Amino acid sequence: MDFALFFTYLAACGAAAATGAMFQPGDWYKSLAKPWWTPKDWVFPVAWTILYICMSWAAMRVAILAGSDARVGQALALWSVQIALNTLWTPVFFGLRRIGAGLVIIAMLWLAVAGTMMAFWQVDPVAGYLFAPYLLWVTIAGALNRSVYWRNPAGSAAS
Amino acid sequence: MDFALFFTYLAACGAAAATGAMFQPGDWYKSLAKPWWTPKDWVFPVAWTILYICMSWAAMRVAILAGSDARVGQALALWSVQIALNTLWTPVFFGLRRIGAGLVIIAMLWLAVAGTMMAFWQVDPVAGYLFAPYLLWVTIAGALNRSVYWRNPAGSAAS
Repeated sequence: MDFALFFTYLAACGAAAATGAMFQPGDWYKSLAKPWWTPKDWVFPVAWTILYICMSWAAMRVAILAGSDARVGQALALWSVQIALNTLWTPVFFGLRRIGAGLVIIAMLWLAVAGTMMAFWQVDPVAGYLFAPYLLWVTIAGALNRSVYWRNPAGSAAS
Repeated sequence: MDFALFFTYLAACGAAAATGAMFQPGDWYKSLAKPWWTPKDWVFPVAWTILYICMSWAAMRVAILAGSDARVGQALALWSVQIALNTLWTPVFFGLRRIGAGLVIIAMLWLAVAGTMMAFWQVDPVAGYLFAPYLLWVTIAGALNRSVYWRNPAGSAAS
């Protein structure tokens, strides 16, 4: 059991899980013709909660095998967190047009990218340097998200 | 240089990049008040292409360090692919209401989950078993997506 690894992988799952909370099925999904064996709505969050725990536990077990230097497994786990958060931001900002939620996500992405860069740098400085342009860009993108948030008080979720 | 690792991590980036292609800024973004230093629109895809290559290269270098058994690094890279695709599906299906695109993504997710499960199983059977419920669920969810696609020819992208 390696709590840091488990919760890092669970954080990546958290980014995926956030899509379920933010993009609701709603009336459109209700109106779709579906087969008789469609699971009830309540089954989905229950199933996903179990699955996210299982897949994080599995990844933790494999990352432990990365082994001689435990920081390698942890660094790769952080990479997974940043790519999931990266995938989440665009649909929330441009899809839902939720500028404030986008700001929260990009702040978490910034932390994940900075954390990955430091973890990479510790085990392989070149890998850390390769992350520097990414951290710079997310800093710019985050500042832009924040500026847009301030300048458009009524812009969020506008249609 | 490990091509399998590099392209596996690049595949995870591909899922993140797909959000940029599918959730376009459009008139809403144009209409927002933005600071003078906002980068031109063309800069974003150029920057992201470079960043995705850099971050995949960096992850490849670190995954190589996972080392004694090269399959460990490859297995963790596949885990990153599945979490990014997992994060992508919900916004495309429930956000864009693109049932067909969702079907393509869930097919890729199924392959990524099956690949991760096999890779995990090879280095740690318990980790492979922990992925079995996930593969089963994605099989059900994929079948549901396909059934909904067939039953709702006009349902895609309906408002």
